[in-house]
Amino acid sequence: MLFSNIIILDENLSVREGMYVGIKGNKIDYVGKEVPKEDYGEIYEGKGRLLMSGFFNSHAHTPMTLMRGYGENMALQSWLNDRIFPFEDKLMGDDVYFATLLGIAESLRYGIVSTTDMYYFCDRMAEAVLESGVKNNLGRGLTSFTDAELWDLQAYRESKYLFEQYNNKGGGRLKVDMSLHAEYTSNPKIVRQFSEFTKELGTRMHVHISETTDEHRDCKERHGKTPVAYFNDLGLLDSKTTAAHCVFVEGEDFDILAEKGVTVATCPVSNLKLASGVCNVPLLLKRQIPVAIGTDSVSSNNSLNYIEEMKFFSLVHKARYEDPTLITPKQTLYAATRAGALGQDRTDTGKLAVGFRADLIVLDISGPNMHPVHDLLNNVVYAASGSDVVLTMVDGRVLYRDGEFKTIDLEKVQYEVEKSRVRIIGEL
Amino acid sequence: MLFSNIIILDENLSVREGMYVGIKGNKIDYVGKEVPKEDYGEIYEGKGRLLMSGFFNSHAHTPMTLMRGYGENMALQSWLNDRIFPFEDKLMGDDVYFATLLGIAESLRYGIVSTTDMYYFCDRMAEAVLESGVKNNLGRGLTSFTDAELWDLQAYRESKYLFEQYNNKGGGRLKVDMSLHAEYTSNPKIVRQFSEFTKELGTRMHVHISETTDEHRDCKERHGKTPVAYFNDLGLLDSKTTAAHCVFVEGEDFDILAEKGVTVATCPVSNLKLASGVCNVPLLLKRQIPVAIGTDSVSSNNSLNYIEEMKFFSLVHKARYEDPTLITPKQTLYAATRAGALGQDRTDTGKLAVGFRADLIVLDISGPNMHPVHDLLNNVVYAASGSDVVLTMVDGRVLYRDGEFKTIDLEKVQYEVEKSRVRIIGEL
Repeated sequence: MLFSNIIILDENLSVREGMYVGIKGNKIDYVGKEVPKEDYGEIYEGKGRLLMSGFFNSHAHTPMTLMRGYGENMALQSWLNDRIFPFEDKLMGDDVYFATLLGIAESLRYGIVSTTDMYYFCDRMAEAVLESGVKNNLGRGLTSFTDAELWDLQAYRESKYLFEQYNNKGGGRLKVDMSLHAEYTSNPKIVRQFSEFTKELGTRMHVHISETTDEHRDCKERHGKTPVAYFNDLGLLDSKTTAAHCVFVEGEDFDILAEKGVTVATCPVSNLKLASGVCNVPLLLKRQIPVAIGTDSVSSNNSLNYIEEMKFFSLVHKARYEDPTLITPKQTLYAATRAGALGQDRTDTGKLAVGFRADLIVLDISGPNMHPVHDLLNNVVYAASGSDVVLTMVDGRVLYRDGEFKTIDLEKVQYEVEKSRVRIIGEL
Repeated sequence: MLFSNIIILDENLSVREGMYVGIKGNKIDYVGKEVPKEDYGEIYEGKGRLLMSGFFNSHAHTPMTLMRGYGENMALQSWLNDRIFPFEDKLMGDDVYFATLLGIAESLRYGIVSTTDMYYFCDRMAEAVLESGVKNNLGRGLTSFTDAELWDLQAYRESKYLFEQYNNKGGGRLKVDMSLHAEYTSNPKIVRQFSEFTKELGTRMHVHISETTDEHRDCKERHGKTPVAYFNDLGLLDSKTTAAHCVFVEGEDFDILAEKGVTVATCPVSNLKLASGVCNVPLLLKRQIPVAIGTDSVSSNNSLNYIEEMKFFSLVHKARYEDPTLITPKQTLYAATRAGALGQDRTDTGKLAVGFRADLIVLDISGPNMHPVHDLLNNVVYAASGSDVVLTMVDGRVLYRDGEFKTIDLEKVQYEVEKSRVRIIGEL
């Protein structure tokens, strides 16, 4: 495909007008002001359109689309104990498969090209990822409430199987991470053993850290240190790590996160909705700690509207730290694209430049909400609507365009998800 | 028009499926489970669609669409003094006219049927409102920095002229309110005189109150009382009043607001973006003070995406007051519709019921973001996207449908707005 006479956000997130971008195979082959000599096939007319890197969702539990809007406006523990856990207890493989496809469809509609996911029934999630053409860093969330050894845990065996079967499948689209659920759902022995195992595999770690004030305080009471320090002392952060939330990190946590190069996946909408708090992104950025953006699950969001998530990301820190100069649109877009890609060990994507993977989106910028244009970056972050995304391409393949999903039978998926929902609600 | 076999949010904001809604003239003539006998003309097929009241934008400065994205990430005073005020100084009537039309187009795209507006060049705004078919409560923002009498102020003369020429024009679509800009841009004499004048006219008052901590504190230093108490003592709140922002209202302010029945127009996005703070909506609601939702201007938002605004409204209070049970979807939708209508003295609209004005919108609820449906209200507030609005009708007339504006030549408007932008930037 040749994107013709289109505005782009280039590799420095600078706006360049009247550009030509040629895609060959799964890569960006040409970026320039001149019409390229090579024939790239279909010509995409760029008038009133913006071409840029797709978005990277750095923390999600995609199958929880099935629980969208189920159990709302409840206190966290009663929401989990009375709604989410009993519902999850009824899940079967097909439920997870179709719910994942539904989440992938929504992701594509909103310009998400790759997601860092933590859940279970991961073989069925892998299937959905591979079939649909998106990218995913998939992890089987590991918990342990007994004094069992790591290798006796079902979640360990599944993680290992998942890695052996699926890591780097789909031409590298699917990566398998190890996922420790959290400090309060495991114990030091398991953390140490799982850290060792992850280092041996040489893959990434994905973990919830300091999402709620209770979790953070309880960890300090239990172990005499913060979750970040606790995990660091047990070797967890020796593997490249994505730490979701980090709302309550404090003091030396920032030193550790910086030293270990941990990617913090902040989830502003979910953190507001569950009344958890606001992650100190300005300080993380000041300390040059990589910050990426996650939607968290649809049960606590309740959408995968990434442009909306970027707006929340941009605004909550201004308010929380009483400074409207905090978090520029460029910082937001970097977190949404390149920082997200690097936080998935995808060094070959997350920016629009020759030689990089063609993980790209097109925004329709012709609508009334995108005019006038004093500064296009301001408009993209503060004024665009999620569904201004009109094309989503992964590895050079168009997966979504103008309301149509090329690899997903949305009607069937929605039918199956509704069937799962009705069955499970009936069983509860 | 007959909406056929459609899901509706009825007058109690309850979901009812398989409904028929007939529109005759500017009113809702029929709501029922049965196909009506009467012929309502065009049949609108309701499959996968939700029909509900349109949204009421309770605080805006529509012509500031012209400054969208101009001067971002700046401290409030330097943003105003170095960007907004110099830009506004260059405005001419045509600039305001076309910028208002652009804002109206964006409003219609996002399902806003009526707006409470404060600005100047209001005759040109009135023109745009009357031509485009929307509803508006229009006020000429009045300020005074001298010891002049009210009747010597240009803004007074314009307010009076506006009321005499335009109040209740367009079959009542256009209402003219009086608008005092704020405490810090006027003085007690002017407030007293303007309060008297507004009472004589019998129209509404629209005023900014306690938007920033500086404004609130300075007022207390100057007058020994909060802005709410100050305005109340000077008689301003004796007219039906819309008070925008109210971020810092405290103590007896709540008693006064409750006693006077003041509609608080909270603007969550703008308040976050300018780092002002979060209005205490849970307490306002507990005190049964009417709460409606405003976008504020596009310069501080930067969109009129009302569904996005509802999501911010729903979430910020959960986070601010650390309680995820605060602000239910029904409370949000009531604030967005009926409370907004009442805050514009439009008792005949803001809900879907027989005899009420047909100020209605249709949401496409067939997308992946709106499935599954555990509770449709949760999905509308937490998961819908602004542009899921596919039809906006005002007084029974379809003004927006599937991307098309029936009364606005969007291409010409965008061309003219861009021309204004270039001219003004050139003059600065």
